[in-house]
Amino acid sequence: MDFVDIPLNKATRLLNHGPLVLVSTTDGQTANACAVAWCAPAGRDPARFVMILGQGHKTYQDLKATGDCVLNLPTADALEQVMVCGKKSGHDGDKLGPAGIELLPSQKVQSPRLACCSAWIETRLWAEPKWDEAGPSLLVVEAVAASCRPGLMSEEHFVDLARFPTLHHLGSNRFVLPGEEIQA
Amino acid sequence: MDFVDIPLNKATRLLNHGPLVLVSTTDGQTANACAVAWCAPAGRDPARFVMILGQGHKTYQDLKATGDCVLNLPTADALEQVMVCGKKSGHDGDKLGPAGIELLPSQKVQSPRLACCSAWIETRLWAEPKWDEAGPSLLVVEAVAASCRPGLMSEEHFVDLARFPTLHHLGSNRFVLPGEEIQA
Repeated sequence: MDFVDIPLNKATRLLNHGPLVLVSTTDGQTANACAVAWCAPAGRDPARFVMILGQGHKTYQDLKATGDCVLNLPTADALEQVMVCGKKSGHDGDKLGPAGIELLPSQKVQSPRLACCSAWIETRLWAEPKWDEAGPSLLVVEAVAASCRPGLMSEEHFVDLARFPTLHHLGSNRFVLPGEEIQA
Repeated sequence: MDFVDIPLNKATRLLNHGPLVLVSTTDGQTANACAVAWCAPAGRDPARFVMILGQGHKTYQDLKATGDCVLNLPTADALEQVMVCGKKSGHDGDKLGPAGIELLPSQKVQSPRLACCSAWIETRLWAEPKWDEAGPSLLVVEAVAASCRPGLMSEEHFVDLARFPTLHHLGSNRFVLPGEEIQA
């Protein structure tokens, strides 16, 4: 599949507008992915991202064990795969293979890229700042490689959301796609 | 101005889809606000949010001093005010008054609500997890009151983005509004 690499200091542009991501990991044997709406950039250069993950989740455990994950950016055509990743638990065995969710090798991390997505940010765990023993974890990851489908990012590093409509989670099974662009 | 209160455990629904917020604060004398695209829910009940703020910013300093801030949700009609809050520094004196950005009293915190916005989450600083001495701060705030304009949130607690189009920051002076909704 065709893709182009993105300068790392432009990687936050992929998530600046608040889309949902699929976070993929591996335990060394089996790949896993979960849907994460609660993820935001946390620094531009180096490009870092903060996300919230429950410590009981397979994704969290894989990420802590390998020290890496991929933030995969799904677009509207990947809604079905997003629901698989969001609803099933990685603890119940491979959820990707049976659902036909294909993996692509990453450039710099063990965690695979998901072929159903349109952009990929390979990251390494950078920090897990402590804030609430009882709650979910805040994880800060740092980009080490980033790519997208040809045309997703313009030469000025803006995402083309008309061609690649990202998914924004409203709650439950409802999502909104990007619409009109405006300029100030 | 009319508004309705939102149950606190539904407050994350206002930001779940990744819009930009205006974070308002006060130093006791002068109110201030800045535009923050890097903000995400961090817990549903209690409703918490994580955001990234530079420590040199007036907003950061106010928030640390008073211990509170309001996450104001602007919609497309407030683009001009968003640009004022995003471009000017609070250290250069009052940026809200001269721009005609009106304040509303909050219910539970010192920081004011911004009248140009369509929903408001009053929060108290809950934690500032340490992660990078050289970088910006990760701040976790907890909702103590939340309201919205009538009709913005349905009885099932979904935001009506057709009527209240939130702003999603693409970078620079470019934003995208929500478009079509889809259901899985």
